[in-house]
Amino acid sequence: MSKKLTSRAEDYSKWYNELVVKADLAENSAVRGCMVIKPYGYAIWEKMQAELDRMFKETGHQNAYFPLFVPKSLFEAEEKNAEGFAKECAVVTHYRLQSDPDNEGKLRVDPEAKLEEELVVRPTSEAIIWNTYRNWIQSYRDLPLLINQWANVVRWEMRTRLFLRTAEFLWQEGHTAHETKAEAIEETKLMNSVYAKFAENFMAIPVIQGVKTESERFAGAEDTYCIEALMQDGKALQAGTSHFLGQNFAKAFDVKFANKEGKQDYVWATSWGVSTRLMGALIMTHSDDNGLVLPPNLAPYQVVIVPIYKNEEQLDAISKVAEDIIGDLRDRNISVKFDKRDTLRPGAKFAQHELQGVPVRIAIGPKDLENETVEVARRDTLTKETVILDRVSVVVEDLLEDIQKALFNKALIFRNEHITVVDNFDAFKETIETKGGFVSAHWDGTTETEDKIKEITKATIRCIPLDAKEEEGVCVYSGKPSQKRVLFAKAY
Amino acid sequence: MSKKLTSRAEDYSKWYNELVVKADLAENSAVRGCMVIKPYGYAIWEKMQAELDRMFKETGHQNAYFPLFVPKSLFEAEEKNAEGFAKECAVVTHYRLQSDPDNEGKLRVDPEAKLEEELVVRPTSEAIIWNTYRNWIQSYRDLPLLINQWANVVRWEMRTRLFLRTAEFLWQEGHTAHETKAEAIEETKLMNSVYAKFAENFMAIPVIQGVKTESERFAGAEDTYCIEALMQDGKALQAGTSHFLGQNFAKAFDVKFANKEGKQDYVWATSWGVSTRLMGALIMTHSDDNGLVLPPNLAPYQVVIVPIYKNEEQLDAISKVAEDIIGDLRDRNISVKFDKRDTLRPGAKFAQHELQGVPVRIAIGPKDLENETVEVARRDTLTKETVILDRVSVVVEDLLEDIQKALFNKALIFRNEHITVVDNFDAFKETIETKGGFVSAHWDGTTETEDKIKEITKATIRCIPLDAKEEEGVCVYSGKPSQKRVLFAKAY
Repeated sequence: MSKKLTSRAEDYSKWYNELVVKADLAENSAVRGCMVIKPYGYAIWEKMQAELDRMFKETGHQNAYFPLFVPKSLFEAEEKNAEGFAKECAVVTHYRLQSDPDNEGKLRVDPEAKLEEELVVRPTSEAIIWNTYRNWIQSYRDLPLLINQWANVVRWEMRTRLFLRTAEFLWQEGHTAHETKAEAIEETKLMNSVYAKFAENFMAIPVIQGVKTESERFAGAEDTYCIEALMQDGKALQAGTSHFLGQNFAKAFDVKFANKEGKQDYVWATSWGVSTRLMGALIMTHSDDNGLVLPPNLAPYQVVIVPIYKNEEQLDAISKVAEDIIGDLRDRNISVKFDKRDTLRPGAKFAQHELQGVPVRIAIGPKDLENETVEVARRDTLTKETVILDRVSVVVEDLLEDIQKALFNKALIFRNEHITVVDNFDAFKETIETKGGFVSAHWDGTTETEDKIKEITKATIRCIPLDAKEEEGVCVYSGKPSQKRVLFAKAY
Repeated sequence: MSKKLTSRAEDYSKWYNELVVKADLAENSAVRGCMVIKPYGYAIWEKMQAELDRMFKETGHQNAYFPLFVPKSLFEAEEKNAEGFAKECAVVTHYRLQSDPDNEGKLRVDPEAKLEEELVVRPTSEAIIWNTYRNWIQSYRDLPLLINQWANVVRWEMRTRLFLRTAEFLWQEGHTAHETKAEAIEETKLMNSVYAKFAENFMAIPVIQGVKTESERFAGAEDTYCIEALMQDGKALQAGTSHFLGQNFAKAFDVKFANKEGKQDYVWATSWGVSTRLMGALIMTHSDDNGLVLPPNLAPYQVVIVPIYKNEEQLDAISKVAEDIIGDLRDRNISVKFDKRDTLRPGAKFAQHELQGVPVRIAIGPKDLENETVEVARRDTLTKETVILDRVSVVVEDLLEDIQKALFNKALIFRNEHITVVDNFDAFKETIETKGGFVSAHWDGTTETEDKIKEITKATIRCIPLDAKEEEGVCVYSGKPSQKRVLFAKAY
């Protein structure tokens, strides 16, 4: 914590990597590409989980748990999906280690203990879940089936970054089954909107809801809805996806039901997920050169109280005042930590809490005792005010609400300033190269054009926004006719 | 749900297997030895998790997350621990699948994509965690480190049973680091007592706290504390363990700290865990030939309301009454489900809720509307009473408390009746063979005797109870002197 962070202007990527480690959020592990989520980082993830879980249950979903492993034969049953993941899977081939007598008793994989069928460590669970659903669904009475799973998944990524792209990550994956196409599409949209609400109200991250183009779609999906956010370096980040899977998995796994007319039909499916990647989005959206900035709704503790004292007597007196404040704050459901550590000076504590993004800091010193005041500082603006003791809990409660709103508004203004409408390819390239952010442009609807633009500019179509208006125009690259603008950006 | 359960008397093991599946708790999956935890079963597990997590946090612990994989070299660093698990590990050797052109495009493991170092799927996380702690601990100021992880682990068991023994299971594992031996032992005992409190107060399962003998100890531990429960078939079940690890892992992973005198010392460690095995204990302790019996503190919903009606008009009138009751119950923090399904008759609903162990059932029919009453039935005793409408919420609240206590007391009486004090080996064998349960006997303290007794009777020493009194005696098998009785039993 001693050395200053690299600034965002200097090297945004380095700033992020340093911040994640220095703020005690996560670190790389001894396993290539796998991270350790440290207690402070995990506490934020737990808050995300709790709120998402509440929202899922409120919309009628239940949690369940399916196996970590997927037998290879099941994995390949849905062809497109298998193709999409085959290259980045961890594969279990053996089930035993044994001492190697030739090698000083070191362990080696026992060649005798080879599995008859290799097991894929789940990169996502459609295959194992749909294979299970076949036995759960017989009639329309068993539908809809609205299930979510909190789990770890593994994708053997070659270039990894803490939270943003790791070989193992934590996520939730919803897998639902429906009677009709319309109902499944409605579910797909509903869950995408749940993600949008969560991102905006809890993470204070404005997002654009949209649909992916065919080439950016989830393997095996007929339509992928998404929420797209914009980071401070002008790159977009896909923060959540919700897939309409049609009858693809039902057909691959033979999941039929007797409909109300008594006829057999394949069920309609959706799947949707968000992951610990959200942590990366949270960090990159709000934080500054001093460290993490956390929205109060997700902070492990919203307030920290730091006593400033020269002797035990002063500490005792300050502690009494602090305990009263803590009681008042907790009555208002505000989480607070009293940092009484005697191993650090107040200045070092201030620096640590700033680095870790605690939304509000209260400092109490001997002068404050005399004046019956405290010093209240807010992390996002780095401003301070002196508050009389009687008013502390009211002021802090208002402040936390203010901070939550202010972070969202600041991010929204930044995001909106970084949606550039362009109508020719020179302006397109210029914007992507210099300003960054989203470029709103007409596109002819072909994968060919999309690929070409990506090749030239590294920008991809992030989404076709749900609220995109019908508008006659011509494709920014090919000049062919187009009826809608889509959003391009370089992305994480 | 149509066919009756096998009775416990007929075949206890079959009864258990059927019950788990029919009550919709879990089922076997397409992956050998791995289970699917179904929504109703998972809802119980979530309640267990929530309460345990609260208890862990109350005792100062924080959650974190460590990688699923352990590099083989780390795994073997702590020799005893590695030996203990080597034979039952899943091993990842490759990281890619590819289409096999000779085999109709089916996927096969890509031989090119072999890992340089094989990865063991964690059977427990001491190795990866202690390898991480080395960088987290420099000084006594970093201690104690009190961390818990909720995770999945894999042990390649040959004979598996739903919840009781599965290849993959869910658990929590606490891993703590301390300055002194005394503090680590205190932590070990504290967490064992947290488990005991949870088992007794939430699961309504009386447990015996004790210490394991050397041969039953966790590989790598210096002492293993445990809680032992007794199932209805007279077999014991180890429901949780807490290990004092000494400095074994600190030495294996070189985790030293500067103590208050500035000297380098190895830290002292503990680890402790409970798993989805607890679900097995819960089911086997309370359930009967009609199905599951759940303690109210862990029931996904504590009350179900079933309307009995002949037409829509009656259903509307009943629904109005039901909604009032639901409001009153929720005000008292009682969870309730209104079972309005029109696809099942009331009798079928009663049977299902009985099978699924819902603690209290309220039935409301046209007669009840006239009389302003409802019928309240309790699952554990299968008794019913008529309750006037005004009193329903009070009666139900009391009833739930009663049921929670009654289940514990019933299990306690059964357990205590099945602790048999014996002083000769004929009585020992006779008790184990016919009556079952715990046998309290003197033991000479040697592994040799323990092994012999196990060979002859299949009974193992479940624990040396923490409250065992000093008592002069002779070993029930060898006749050698002994100062304490220990508890033997056949066990799951």
